[in-house]
Amino acid sequence: MTRRHPTLAIQIRDRLHALIVEQGLRPGDRLPSENELMTLFDVGRTSIREAFKLLEQEGLIQARHGDGRYLTSQPSLDRPLTRLEGVTEMLASRGFTADNTVLDVMATEPDRHQRELLQLPPGEAIVRLERLRRHRDDALLYSIDLFPRSLIGRPLDEVDWTGSLFQLLTEHGHTIAYAVAQVRAVTLSHAQAERIGTHEDGGAWLLLLQTHHGSAGRPVLYSQDYHRGTDFSFHLVRRRD
Amino acid sequence: MTRRHPTLAIQIRDRLHALIVEQGLRPGDRLPSENELMTLFDVGRTSIREAFKLLEQEGLIQARHGDGRYLTSQPSLDRPLTRLEGVTEMLASRGFTADNTVLDVMATEPDRHQRELLQLPPGEAIVRLERLRRHRDDALLYSIDLFPRSLIGRPLDEVDWTGSLFQLLTEHGHTIAYAVAQVRAVTLSHAQAERIGTHEDGGAWLLLLQTHHGSAGRPVLYSQDYHRGTDFSFHLVRRRD
Repeated sequence: MTRRHPTLAIQIRDRLHALIVEQGLRPGDRLPSENELMTLFDVGRTSIREAFKLLEQEGLIQARHGDGRYLTSQPSLDRPLTRLEGVTEMLASRGFTADNTVLDVMATEPDRHQRELLQLPPGEAIVRLERLRRHRDDALLYSIDLFPRSLIGRPLDEVDWTGSLFQLLTEHGHTIAYAVAQVRAVTLSHAQAERIGTHEDGGAWLLLLQTHHGSAGRPVLYSQDYHRGTDFSFHLVRRRD
Repeated sequence: MTRRHPTLAIQIRDRLHALIVEQGLRPGDRLPSENELMTLFDVGRTSIREAFKLLEQEGLIQARHGDGRYLTSQPSLDRPLTRLEGVTEMLASRGFTADNTVLDVMATEPDRHQRELLQLPPGEAIVRLERLRRHRDDALLYSIDLFPRSLIGRPLDEVDWTGSLFQLLTEHGHTIAYAVAQVRAVTLSHAQAERIGTHEDGGAWLLLLQTHHGSAGRPVLYSQDYHRGTDFSFHLVRRRD
Protein backbone atom coordinates (compact mmCIF):
# COMPACT_ATOMS: atom_id res chain seq x y z
CA MET A 1 0.00 0.00 0.00
CA THR A 2 2.65 2.51 0.97
CA ARG A 3 4.35 1.95 -2.37
CA ARG A 4 1.20 3.01 -4.20
CA HIS A 5 0.77 6.28 -2.33
CA PRO A 6 3.25 8.45 -4.19
CA THR A 7 1.73 7.68 -7.56
CA LEU A 8 -1.84 8.32 -6.48
CA ALA A 9 -0.76 11.43 -4.59
CA ILE A 10 0.96 12.70 -7.73
CA GLN A 11 -2.16 12.11 -9.81
CA ILE A 12 -4.19 14.08 -7.30
CA ARG A 13 -1.53 16.76 -7.16
CA ASP A 14 -1.83 17.10 -10.95
CA ARG A 15 -5.60 17.40 -10.67
CA LEU A 16 -5.14 20.06 -8.00
CA HIS A 17 -2.77 21.90 -10.32
CA ALA A 18 -5.41 21.78 -13.06
CA LEU A 19 -8.11 22.86 -10.63
CA ILE A 20 -6.04 25.84 -9.44
CA VAL A 21 -5.56 26.93 -13.03
CA GLU A 22 -9.19 26.27 -14.05
CA GLN A 23 -10.65 28.14 -11.09
CA GLY A 24 -8.19 30.97 -11.66
CA LEU A 25 -6.99 30.86 -8.05
CA ARG A 26 -4.39 33.48 -7.14
CA PRO A 27 -1.76 33.61 -4.39
CA GLY A 28 -3.58 34.21 -1.09
CA ASP A 29 -6.72 32.35 -2.21
CA ARG A 30 -7.99 29.43 -0.13
CA LEU A 31 -8.04 25.95 -1.66
CA PRO A 32 -11.11 23.70 -1.35
CA SER A 33 -11.19 21.76 1.93
CA GLU A 34 -10.07 18.15 2.36
CA ASN A 35 -13.71 17.04 2.56
CA GLU A 36 -14.64 18.89 -0.61
CA LEU A 37 -11.69 17.38 -2.48
CA MET A 38 -12.44 13.87 -1.19
CA THR A 39 -15.89 14.17 -2.76
CA LEU A 40 -14.64 15.89 -5.91
CA PHE A 41 -11.85 13.40 -6.66
CA ASP A 42 -13.51 10.39 -4.98
CA VAL A 43 -10.44 9.44 -2.95
CA GLY A 44 -9.58 9.13 0.74
CA ARG A 45 -8.23 11.73 3.12
CA THR A 46 -4.70 10.25 3.19
CA SER A 47 -4.28 10.68 -0.55
CA ILE A 48 -5.50 14.28 -0.40
CA ARG A 49 -3.04 15.02 2.40
CA GLU A 50 -0.17 13.39 0.51
CA ALA A 51 -1.02 15.55 -2.50
CA PHE A 52 -1.13 18.67 -0.28
CA LYS A 53 2.28 17.67 1.07
CA LEU A 54 3.67 17.54 -2.46
CA LEU A 55 2.26 20.96 -3.24
CA GLU A 56 3.77 22.28 0.00
CA GLN A 57 7.14 20.81 -0.98
CA GLU A 58 6.90 22.71 -4.25
CA GLY A 59 6.23 25.86 -2.26
CA LEU A 60 2.92 26.22 -4.05
CA ILE A 61 0.58 26.11 -1.05
CA GLN A 62 0.81 26.75 2.66
CA ALA A 63 -1.19 25.25 5.53
CA ARG A 64 -2.64 27.63 8.11
CA HIS A 65 -3.35 25.90 11.38
CA GLY A 66 -7.06 25.06 11.61
CA ASP A 67 -7.82 27.17 8.57
CA GLY A 68 -7.04 25.02 5.51
CA ARG A 69 -4.55 25.54 2.70
CA TYR A 70 -3.75 28.72 0.83
CA LEU A 71 -2.12 29.26 -2.53
CA THR A 72 1.27 30.96 -2.13
CA SER A 73 2.42 31.08 -5.77
CA GLN A 74 1.33 30.25 -9.28
CA PRO A 75 1.89 26.66 -10.44
CA SER A 76 4.71 26.16 -12.92
CA LEU A 77 4.23 23.77 -15.80
CA ASP A 78 5.17 20.75 -13.78
CA ARG A 79 4.75 17.66 -15.90
CA PRO A 80 4.55 14.00 -14.85
CA LEU A 81 7.47 12.68 -16.81
CA THR A 82 6.59 9.00 -17.02
CA ARG A 83 3.17 9.79 -18.47
CA LEU A 84 3.55 10.46 -22.16
CA GLU A 85 1.73 13.56 -23.33
CA GLY A 86 2.03 15.52 -26.49
CA VAL A 87 3.18 19.10 -26.02
CA THR A 88 -0.13 20.58 -27.15
CA GLU A 89 -2.06 18.34 -24.80
CA MET A 90 0.29 19.02 -21.88
CA LEU A 91 0.03 22.79 -22.23
CA ALA A 92 -3.76 22.60 -22.51
CA SER A 93 -4.11 20.37 -19.43
CA ARG A 94 -2.24 23.01 -17.43
CA GLY A 95 -4.70 25.67 -18.53
CA PHE A 96 -1.88 27.29 -20.46
CA THR A 97 -2.63 29.18 -23.66
CA ALA A 98 0.44 29.48 -25.85
CA ASP A 99 0.21 30.45 -29.49
CA ASN A 100 1.72 27.87 -31.79
CA THR A 101 3.73 29.19 -34.73
CA VAL A 102 4.73 26.85 -37.52
CA LEU A 103 8.26 28.01 -38.39
CA ASP A 104 8.69 25.43 -41.13
CA VAL A 105 7.15 22.26 -42.50
CA MET A 106 8.62 20.30 -45.37
CA ALA A 107 9.10 16.88 -46.88
CA THR A 108 12.76 15.96 -47.11
CA GLU A 109 15.22 13.10 -47.41
CA PRO A 110 16.33 11.85 -43.99
CA ASP A 111 20.03 11.68 -43.21
CA ARG A 112 21.50 8.38 -42.09
CA HIS A 113 20.91 9.05 -38.37
CA GLN A 114 17.29 10.08 -38.91
CA ARG A 115 16.65 7.02 -41.08
CA GLU A 116 17.95 4.79 -38.30
CA LEU A 117 15.90 6.55 -35.62
CA LEU A 118 12.72 5.97 -37.59
CA GLN A 119 13.86 2.59 -38.98
CA LEU A 120 13.07 3.70 -42.52
CA PRO A 121 13.87 1.83 -45.72
CA PRO A 122 16.21 3.69 -48.13
CA GLY A 123 14.46 6.28 -50.26
CA GLU A 124 11.54 6.95 -47.91
CA ALA A 125 10.99 10.64 -47.24
CA ILE A 126 10.22 12.25 -43.92
CA VAL A 127 8.29 15.32 -42.80
CA ARG A 128 10.22 17.85 -40.75
CA LEU A 129 7.98 20.10 -38.68
CA GLU A 130 9.45 22.99 -36.74
CA ARG A 131 7.22 24.85 -34.31
CA LEU A 132 7.44 27.46 -31.59
CA ARG A 133 5.11 28.09 -28.68
CA ARG A 134 5.29 31.61 -27.30
CA HIS A 135 3.89 32.96 -24.08
CA ARG A 136 3.71 36.70 -23.44
CA ASP A 137 5.84 37.28 -26.55
CA ASP A 138 8.70 35.13 -25.30
CA ALA A 139 9.76 31.71 -26.57
CA LEU A 140 8.44 28.99 -24.26
CA LEU A 141 8.82 25.73 -26.15
CA TYR A 142 10.69 25.02 -29.39
CA SER A 143 9.97 21.72 -31.16
CA ILE A 144 11.34 19.83 -34.12
CA ASP A 145 9.35 16.76 -35.15
CA LEU A 146 10.37 14.16 -37.72
CA PHE A 147 8.10 11.42 -39.01
CA PRO A 148 7.75 9.26 -42.13
CA ARG A 149 6.11 11.16 -45.01
CA SER A 150 3.99 8.10 -45.74
CA LEU A 151 2.08 8.44 -42.45
CA ILE A 152 0.12 11.47 -43.68
CA GLY A 153 -1.29 10.77 -47.14
CA ARG A 154 -2.23 14.39 -47.98
CA PRO A 155 -0.44 17.38 -49.45
CA LEU A 156 1.39 19.06 -46.57
CA ASP A 157 -0.06 22.48 -47.27
CA GLU A 158 -3.58 21.13 -46.78
CA VAL A 159 -2.86 20.07 -43.19
CA ASP A 160 -3.38 22.31 -40.16
CA TRP A 161 -0.09 21.95 -38.27
CA THR A 162 -0.98 24.23 -35.37
CA GLY A 163 -2.80 21.54 -33.36
CA SER A 164 -1.76 18.34 -31.63
CA LEU A 165 0.57 16.19 -33.71
CA PHE A 166 -0.34 13.14 -31.60
CA GLN A 167 -3.99 13.68 -32.52
CA LEU A 168 -3.20 14.26 -36.18
CA LEU A 169 -1.21 11.02 -36.36
CA THR A 170 -4.00 9.15 -34.55
CA GLU A 171 -6.52 10.46 -37.08
CA HIS A 172 -4.32 8.95 -39.78
CA GLY A 173 -4.27 5.56 -38.03
CA HIS A 174 -0.92 5.95 -36.23
CA THR A 175 -1.53 6.01 -32.50
CA ILE A 176 1.46 6.54 -30.24
CA ALA A 177 1.78 4.13 -27.31
CA TYR A 178 5.09 4.96 -25.68
CA ALA A 179 8.31 6.90 -26.12
CA VAL A 180 11.94 6.29 -25.24
CA ALA A 181 13.05 9.66 -23.90
CA GLN A 182 16.34 11.33 -23.10
CA VAL A 183 16.42 14.36 -20.81
CA ARG A 184 19.18 16.95 -20.96
CA ALA A 185 19.89 20.48 -19.80
CA VAL A 186 21.28 22.62 -22.61
CA THR A 187 21.88 26.19 -23.68
CA LEU A 188 20.81 27.34 -27.13
CA SER A 189 23.31 27.97 -29.88
CA HIS A 190 23.47 31.42 -31.42
CA ALA A 191 21.66 30.13 -34.50
CA GLN A 192 18.90 28.49 -32.46
CA ALA A 193 18.37 31.56 -30.30
CA GLU A 194 18.14 33.71 -33.42
CA ARG A 195 15.75 31.25 -35.02
CA ILE A 196 13.26 31.49 -32.17
CA GLY A 197 13.82 35.17 -31.44
CA THR A 198 15.22 34.91 -27.94
CA HIS A 199 18.49 35.88 -26.27
CA GLU A 200 21.51 33.66 -26.74
CA ASP A 201 22.19 33.96 -23.02
CA GLY A 202 18.57 33.02 -22.40
CA GLY A 203 19.54 30.54 -19.73
CA ALA A 204 19.03 26.81 -19.47
CA TRP A 205 16.59 24.77 -21.53
CA LEU A 206 15.28 21.31 -20.72
CA LEU A 207 15.65 19.21 -23.86
CA LEU A 208 13.58 16.08 -24.40
CA LEU A 209 14.73 13.80 -27.22
CA GLN A 210 12.06 11.22 -27.83
CA THR A 211 11.48 8.30 -30.14
CA HIS A 212 7.73 7.65 -30.14
CA HIS A 213 6.49 4.17 -30.94
CA GLY A 214 3.15 2.66 -31.95
CA SER A 215 1.69 -0.18 -29.89
CA ALA A 216 3.43 -2.74 -32.13
CA GLY A 217 6.76 -1.09 -31.36
CA ARG A 218 7.30 0.60 -34.72
CA PRO A 219 8.86 4.09 -34.49
CA VAL A 220 6.32 6.70 -35.54
CA LEU A 221 7.84 10.03 -34.55
CA TYR A 222 11.15 11.48 -33.40
CA SER A 223 10.87 14.75 -31.52
CA GLN A 224 13.25 17.31 -30.04
CA ASP A 225 11.47 19.58 -27.56
CA TYR A 226 13.27 22.50 -25.92
CA HIS A 227 11.43 23.65 -22.76
CA ARG A 228 12.42 27.02 -21.29
CA GLY A 229 14.04 26.14 -17.98
CA THR A 230 12.44 28.87 -15.92
CA ASP A 231 8.95 27.69 -16.81
CA PHE A 232 9.03 23.94 -16.74
CA SER A 233 9.77 21.28 -14.20
CA PHE A 234 9.05 17.60 -14.49
CA HIS A 235 8.40 15.19 -11.68
CA LEU A 236 8.48 11.46 -11.24
CA VAL A 237 8.85 8.74 -8.68
CA ARG A 238 12.15 6.86 -8.66
CA ARG A 239 12.53 3.47 -7.00
CA ARG A 240 15.34 1.28 -5.82
CA ASP A 241 15.56 -1.94 -7.86
CA MET B 1 5.17 -8.63 -24.90
CA THR B 2 5.91 -5.60 -27.02
CA ARG B 3 5.29 -3.39 -24.00
CA ARG B 4 8.03 -5.16 -22.07
CA HIS B 5 10.69 -4.73 -24.75
CA PRO B 6 11.78 -1.16 -24.06
CA THR B 7 12.42 -1.83 -20.38
CA LEU B 8 14.46 -4.98 -20.95
CA ALA B 9 16.28 -3.35 -23.85
CA ILE B 10 17.15 -0.40 -21.62
CA GLN B 11 18.52 -2.70 -18.93
CA ILE B 12 20.71 -4.41 -21.50
CA ARG B 13 21.70 -1.06 -22.94
CA ASP B 14 22.86 -0.03 -19.45
CA ARG B 15 24.87 -3.24 -19.13
CA LEU B 16 26.42 -2.57 -22.53
CA HIS B 17 27.31 0.94 -21.34
CA ALA B 18 28.98 -0.55 -18.28
CA LEU B 19 30.77 -3.17 -20.40
CA ILE B 20 32.09 -0.51 -22.79
CA VAL B 21 33.48 1.44 -19.85
CA GLU B 22 34.85 -1.65 -18.05
CA GLN B 23 36.58 -3.01 -21.13
CA GLY B 24 37.95 0.44 -21.92
CA LEU B 25 36.59 0.33 -25.48
CA ARG B 26 37.45 3.35 -27.60
CA PRO B 27 35.75 4.82 -30.69
CA GLY B 28 36.53 2.51 -33.62
CA ASP B 29 36.62 -0.63 -31.44
CA ARG B 30 34.34 -3.52 -32.27
CA LEU B 31 31.66 -4.54 -29.76
CA PRO B 32 31.14 -8.19 -28.79
CA SER B 33 28.89 -10.05 -31.25
CA GLU B 34 25.18 -10.69 -30.75
CA ASN B 35 25.92 -14.34 -29.94
CA GLU B 36 28.56 -13.44 -27.36
CA LEU B 37 26.21 -10.97 -25.68
CA MET B 38 23.30 -13.45 -25.69
CA THR B 39 25.50 -15.81 -23.70
CA LEU B 40 27.00 -13.10 -21.50
CA PHE B 41 23.66 -11.49 -20.53
CA ASP B 42 21.56 -14.65 -20.87
CA VAL B 43 18.89 -13.02 -23.02
CA GLY B 44 17.50 -13.52 -26.51
CA ARG B 45 18.63 -11.99 -29.78
CA THR B 46 15.67 -9.60 -30.03
CA SER B 47 16.56 -7.93 -26.74
CA ILE B 48 20.20 -7.54 -27.77
CA ARG B 49 19.12 -5.98 -31.06
CA GLU B 50 16.72 -3.61 -29.30
CA ALA B 51 19.55 -2.53 -27.02
CA PHE B 52 21.85 -2.02 -30.01
CA LYS B 53 19.13 0.08 -31.59
CA LEU B 54 19.00 2.30 -28.51
CA LEU B 55 22.76 2.73 -28.57
CA GLU B 56 22.55 3.59 -32.27
CA GLN B 57 19.87 6.18 -31.52
CA GLU B 58 22.24 7.74 -29.01
CA GLY B 59 24.88 7.88 -31.71
CA LEU B 60 27.11 5.72 -29.56
CA ILE B 61 27.56 2.76 -31.90
CA GLN B 62 27.28 2.10 -35.61
CA ALA B 63 26.41 -1.09 -37.45
CA ARG B 64 28.65 -2.11 -40.36
CA HIS B 65 26.90 -4.41 -42.77
CA GLY B 66 27.88 -8.03 -42.06
CA ASP B 67 30.62 -6.91 -39.70
CA GLY B 68 29.02 -6.22 -36.32
CA ARG B 69 28.80 -3.01 -34.33
CA TYR B 70 31.51 -0.44 -33.70
CA LEU B 71 31.84 2.20 -31.02
CA THR B 72 31.59 5.68 -32.53
CA SER B 73 31.85 7.83 -29.38
CA GLN B 74 32.36 7.60 -25.64
CA PRO B 75 29.23 6.98 -23.56
CA SER B 76 27.99 9.97 -21.60
CA LEU B 77 26.73 9.49 -18.08
CA ASP B 78 23.31 8.46 -19.21
CA ARG B 79 21.26 7.47 -16.21
CA PRO B 80 18.00 5.50 -16.06
CA LEU B 81 15.86 8.08 -14.36
CA THR B 82 13.14 5.89 -12.88
CA ARG B 83 15.70 3.70 -11.12
CA LEU B 84 16.78 5.42 -7.95
CA GLU B 85 20.54 5.47 -7.45
CA GLY B 86 22.67 7.51 -5.13
CA VAL B 87 25.10 9.82 -6.89
CA THR B 88 28.17 7.90 -5.66
CA GLU B 89 26.72 4.62 -6.84
CA MET B 90 25.63 6.05 -10.19
CA LEU B 91 29.06 7.47 -10.97
CA ALA B 92 30.74 4.21 -9.99
CA SER B 93 28.41 2.08 -12.13
CA ARG B 94 29.42 4.19 -15.13
CA GLY B 95 33.08 3.49 -14.49
CA PHE B 96 33.48 7.15 -13.66
CA THR B 97 36.08 8.21 -11.09
CA ALA B 98 35.34 11.64 -9.66
CA ASP B 99 36.93 12.92 -6.51
CA ASN B 100 34.42 13.86 -3.86
CA THR B 101 35.15 17.01 -1.88
CA VAL B 102 33.18 17.77 1.26
CA LEU B 103 32.67 21.54 1.08
CA ASP B 104 30.75 21.68 4.34
CA VAL B 105 28.99 19.49 6.86
CA MET B 106 27.12 20.82 9.87
CA ALA B 107 24.23 20.31 12.22
CA THR B 108 21.74 23.14 12.02
CA GLU B 109 18.16 24.19 12.71
CA PRO B 110 15.94 23.62 9.69
CA ASP B 111 13.90 26.49 8.31
CA ARG B 112 10.17 26.05 7.98
CA HIS B 113 10.35 24.71 4.42
CA GLN B 114 13.05 22.18 5.29
CA ARG B 115 11.08 21.03 8.34
CA GLU B 116 8.05 20.40 6.17
CA LEU B 117 10.04 18.55 3.52
CA LEU B 118 11.41 16.16 6.13
CA GLN B 119 8.22 16.18 8.24
CA LEU B 120 10.19 17.03 11.37
CA PRO B 121 8.78 17.93 14.79
CA PRO B 122 9.71 21.44 16.01
CA GLY B 123 13.16 21.63 17.59
CA GLU B 124 14.69 18.67 15.72
CA ALA B 125 18.01 19.51 14.10
CA ILE B 126 19.17 18.49 10.62
CA VAL B 127 22.51 17.73 9.02
CA ARG B 128 23.41 19.80 5.97
CA LEU B 129 26.03 18.16 3.78
CA GLU B 130 27.48 20.02 0.82
CA ARG B 131 29.69 18.12 -1.59
CA LEU B 132 31.33 18.56 -4.96
CA ARG B 133 32.46 15.92 -7.46
CA ARG B 134 35.13 17.11 -9.82
CA HIS B 135 36.36 15.48 -13.01
CA ARG B 136 39.54 16.66 -14.70
CA ASP B 137 39.62 19.65 -12.34
CA ASP B 138 36.19 20.86 -13.39
CA ALA B 139 32.96 20.77 -11.38
CA LEU B 140 30.83 17.81 -12.47
CA LEU B 141 28.18 17.39 -9.78
CA TYR B 142 27.29 19.69 -6.89
CA SER B 143 25.11 18.26 -4.11
CA ILE B 144 23.38 19.58 -1.02
CA ASP B 145 21.85 16.91 1.24
CA LEU B 146 19.59 17.52 4.22
CA PHE B 147 18.54 14.81 6.68
CA PRO B 148 17.42 14.59 10.33
CA ARG B 149 20.37 14.84 12.73
CA SER B 150 18.87 11.96 14.75
CA LEU B 151 19.47 9.46 11.92
CA ILE B 152 23.24 9.38 12.51
CA GLY B 153 23.94 8.91 16.21
CA ARG B 154 27.63 9.83 16.11
CA PRO B 155 29.66 13.04 16.23
CA LEU B 156 29.69 14.44 12.69
CA ASP B 157 33.48 14.79 12.59
CA GLU B 158 33.88 11.04 13.18
CA VAL B 159 31.97 10.17 10.02
CA ASP B 160 33.59 9.71 6.60
CA TRP B 161 31.38 11.84 4.35
CA THR B 162 33.23 11.13 1.10
CA GLY B 163 31.41 7.86 0.37
CA SER B 164 27.84 6.91 -0.48
CA LEU B 165 25.25 8.67 1.69
CA PHE B 166 22.68 6.01 0.81
CA GLN B 167 25.04 3.36 2.18
CA LEU B 168 25.84 5.38 5.30
CA LEU B 169 22.13 5.83 6.05
CA THR B 170 21.50 2.12 5.45
CA GLU B 171 24.29 1.24 7.89
CA HIS B 172 22.44 3.34 10.45
CA GLY B 173 19.18 1.48 9.81
CA HIS B 174 17.60 3.98 7.40
CA THR B 175 17.25 2.34 4.02
CA ILE B 176 15.88 4.46 1.20
CA ALA B 177 13.10 2.87 -0.88
CA TYR B 178 11.96 5.57 -3.28
CA ALA B 179 12.20 9.26 -4.03
CA VAL B 180 9.80 11.87 -5.35
CA ALA B 181 11.92 13.79 -7.81
CA GLN B 182 11.64 17.07 -9.68
CA VAL B 183 13.79 17.68 -12.74
CA ARG B 184 14.75 21.17 -13.88
CA ALA B 185 17.23 22.88 -16.17
CA VAL B 186 18.95 25.80 -14.46
CA THR B 187 21.95 28.09 -14.64
CA LEU B 188 24.08 28.67 -11.57
CA SER B 189 23.93 31.92 -9.64
CA HIS B 190 27.11 33.94 -9.28
CA ALA B 191 27.45 32.76 -5.67
CA GLN B 192 26.97 29.11 -6.59
CA ALA B 193 29.46 29.26 -9.44
CA GLU B 194 31.99 30.89 -7.14
CA ARG B 195 31.30 28.30 -4.44
CA ILE B 196 32.16 25.39 -6.72
CA GLY B 197 34.92 27.16 -8.61
CA THR B 198 33.39 27.19 -12.06
CA HIS B 199 32.37 29.88 -14.52
CA GLU B 200 29.12 31.70 -13.99
CA ASP B 201 28.36 31.33 -17.67
CA GLY B 202 29.15 27.62 -17.29
CA GLY B 203 26.06 26.65 -19.23
CA ALA B 204 23.05 24.61 -18.23
CA TRP B 205 22.82 22.29 -15.24
CA LEU B 206 20.31 19.51 -14.73
CA LEU B 207 18.90 19.93 -11.22
CA LEU B 208 17.29 17.03 -9.39
CA LEU B 209 15.30 17.95 -6.28
CA GLN B 210 14.45 14.77 -4.44
CA THR B 211 12.64 13.78 -1.29
CA HIS B 212 13.84 10.29 -0.40
CA HIS B 213 11.58 8.03 1.63
CA GLY B 214 12.03 4.86 3.64
CA SER B 215 9.90 1.81 2.84
CA ALA B 216 7.28 2.94 5.37
CA GLY B 217 6.98 6.26 3.52
CA ARG B 218 8.79 8.44 6.08
CA PRO B 219 11.04 11.13 4.52
CA VAL B 220 14.69 10.31 5.19
CA LEU B 221 16.65 12.68 2.99
CA TYR B 222 16.12 15.76 0.86
CA SER B 223 18.73 16.31 -1.83
CA GLN B 224 19.54 18.95 -4.44
CA ASP B 225 21.88 17.60 -7.10
CA TYR B 226 23.24 19.83 -9.86
CA HIS B 227 24.53 17.76 -12.81
CA ARG B 228 26.69 19.56 -15.38
CA GLY B 229 24.54 19.60 -18.51
CA THR B 230 27.27 18.71 -20.96
CA ASP B 231 28.09 15.48 -19.12
CA PHE B 232 24.78 13.99 -18.08
CA SER B 233 21.71 12.77 -19.79
CA PHE B 234 18.91 10.75 -18.27
CA HIS B 235 16.63 8.37 -20.06
CA LEU B 236 13.29 6.80 -19.35
CA VAL B 237 10.29 5.20 -21.00
CA ARG B 238 7.13 7.26 -21.06
CA ARG B 239 3.72 5.70 -21.67
CA ARG B 240 0.26 6.87 -22.64
CA ASP B 241 -2.28 6.37 -19.82
